[in-house]
Amino acid sequence: MTTVKDMLATYPADLGEIDRAKLTRCIEECVACAQACTACADACLSEGMVGELTKCIRTDMDCADICTTTASVLSRHTGYDANVTRAMLQACATACKACADECGTHADQHEHCRLCAEACRSCEEACQELLGALG
Amino acid sequence: MTTVKDMLATYPADLGEIDRAKLTRCIEECVACAQACTACADACLSEGMVGELTKCIRTDMDCADICTTTASVLSRHTGYDANVTRAMLQACATACKACADECGTHADQHEHCRLCAEACRSCEEACQELLGALG
Amino acid sequence: MTTVKDMLATYPADLGEIDRAKLTRCIEECVACAQACTACADACLSEGMVGELTKCIRTDMDCADICTTTASVLSRHTGYDANVTRAMLQACATACKACADECGTHADQHEHCRLCAEACRSCEEACQELLGALG
Amino acid sequence: MTTVKDMLATYPADLGEIDRAKLTRCIEECVACAQACTACADACLSEGMVGELTKCIRTDMDCADICTTTASVLSRHTGYDANVTRAMLQACATACKACADECGTHADQHEHCRLCAEACRSCEEACQELLGALG
Repeated sequence: MTTVKDMLATYPADLGEIDRAKLTRCIEECVACAQACTACADACLSEGMVGELTKCIRTDMDCADICTTTASVLSRHTGYDANVTRAMLQACATACKACADECGTHADQHEHCRLCAEACRSCEEACQELLGALG
Repeated sequence: MTTVKDMLATYPADLGEIDRAKLTRCIEECVACAQACTACADACLSEGMVGELTKCIRTDMDCADICTTTASVLSRHTGYDANVTRAMLQACATACKACADECGTHADQHEHCRLCAEACRSCEEACQELLGALG
Repeated sequence: MTTVKDMLATYPADLGEIDRAKLTRCIEECVACAQACTACADACLSEGMVGELTKCIRTDMDCADICTTTASVLSRHTGYDANVTRAMLQACATACKACADECGTHADQHEHCRLCAEACRSCEEACQELLGALG
Repeated sequence: MTTVKDMLATYPADLGEIDRAKLTRCIEECVACAQACTACADACLSEGMVGELTKCIRTDMDCADICTTTASVLSRHTGYDANVTRAMLQACATACKACADECGTHADQHEHCRLCAEACRSCEEACQELLGALG
């Protein structure tokens, strides 16, 4: 399958001083986290105790939307604007932390929440690392 | 047509202390700005001088994605998390400012850039006002 | 606020034989329907009887995503491909019908479902009319 | 990283008779194709000959939006509606074919178009296979 790394390697102009490994990982994590959150929201909807999972479902939906948008912003290099990238990475790290915390409270009861919390923690970490590398 | 205000009025739980007028306006501006940015990116693609508009197209695409996600986050009230809302509003204000500035530099040559810059300025202002009201 | 019609009027190239009024209305309906569905899914999550609304929430989420994408595809005119537009309009009409039907079954109990069903019926109709005009 | 297969395995209700391997592959292909198309559109923007790539950029953007939405629809199983899934898979296959064809005409000049065409062909195939399995 075509990978994030493959596509990045074909960009025809200068990428500037960005850390390619951290950028690649961050896009991969955002894409995987968005899918995990969408699937977790839906799995929560099918639990008998859905009434206790409404905050989890909402947080999953926000996190999915924010991760998808962050992956798109990070996949564009033409006319790079560090302010937009930085603000979006901060929003993504915030949403991933909120979702990891919320899913984390149900992780021992719902395997989908446990996996989703892992995806969110991993994505939050990748956003923070890329933020650190942007200076 | 069903309006943002109509839907907000039907929310069955407590909305907390949020300023409904500022929230409504911010969702409306995000939705309108996303459409304007998508249309502006495409109009730029059809200009003869597209080679000089590549930064504008990229900024339009980021702004469209970020405004769409912000509208979705603001349309959800269940399990409200002020940190996520605030971070997304900041990202949206940043993207709208960047896009208004970029489109603004072509506003006298391209009517779509002039209208898009207006939509972005207006959306940026609505995000800042809602941010101010969140405290 | 910048309108769909305003932006369409600034497109710098030939729009072909497309019916501008039907195109404008369809984009407006898709944008309004996406917001209504996102708000309805969240309102359902806050109902005490959320366990009976899980199909409604899911259908709302699909319809919101599909309407947003349809609005974006319809907002682009450069390199027009009738096959893609037609297939997306058919998917959108199908999703809107499914969501109107599902929300319709709760319309007498939940005002948000009543309004959302109206938005979906109206959007389905606009998609069908534009499909008819495309030939 | 959390995988599509991992998340699917945690769904707490009955998935019906759907072919899990074909569903998993189709979601993976949609997610990968969306990222490839977003990156290809941006890479095209940075080519000196951008004026000759405007149809390619537009098709990439449509395909990215449609693949993202298809991945989301396919990641939800609660309240499954075969009509919506089928219509969205048809739209996705149509968009992927259009994008593969368009990128394919530049594949010998631009490595990003060559890789993107591959991603689109592969995603189109996965959509067709899942459509076939749905009956």
